[in-house]
Amino acid sequence: MAIIILGDRHAGAQAPAVPDAAAVCLSCHGPFGRPETPEYPIIGGQNAAYLASALRAYRAGQRTGEAAGVMTGVAEPLDDRTIEDLAAFFSSLRSLR
Amino acid sequence: MAIIILGDRHAGAQAPAVPDAAAVCLSCHGPFGRPETPEYPIIGGQNAAYLASALRAYRAGQRTGEAAGVMTGVAEPLDDRTIEDLAAFFSSLRSLR
Repeated sequence: MAIIILGDRHAGAQAPAVPDAAAVCLSCHGPFGRPETPEYPIIGGQNAAYLASALRAYRAGQRTGEAAGVMTGVAEPLDDRTIEDLAAFFSSLRSLR
Repeated sequence: MAIIILGDRHAGAQAPAVPDAAAVCLSCHGPFGRPETPEYPIIGGQNAAYLASALRAYRAGQRTGEAAGVMTGVAEPLDDRTIEDLAAFFSSLRSLR
């Protein structure tokens, strides 16, 4: 199953491609990076540099407590390039703009 | 100096009061919770429950690495009520909606 979400924030420009790894993020953070669950952050439209640093922090085990364990499991296998691609993709979504 | 920011998301309803503690947050995250610095998260309009859980995690020292040290210093003195008030206030700002 492929979820094609056009990053509508760049109506004219080329929207970032949907990284394969995004499917896992979408399952909790929702199709536009806007989760149903209020305890989860809106990541759609969030600053890309912040999203990347948060994913690196989860990957490095620098975030613990509450739901951090789930995110550490998600982030652990991600390489730097995939982290940057995910950050660019979710930042391109309108939710936070 | 007092910064009065009307949480415009509740144009009709009563916008949450601006907590005194918000001044510190605004100094980095910007007047509408939209920081100039891309490494900082947009907190304006973010889910209140998430904002509160993130502040509790910083307060408890459960987030380390990158800019976490600054946030731990900010969150340490905050009591639960102030955390809930800050989360409600910043969530009420339009940036992320």
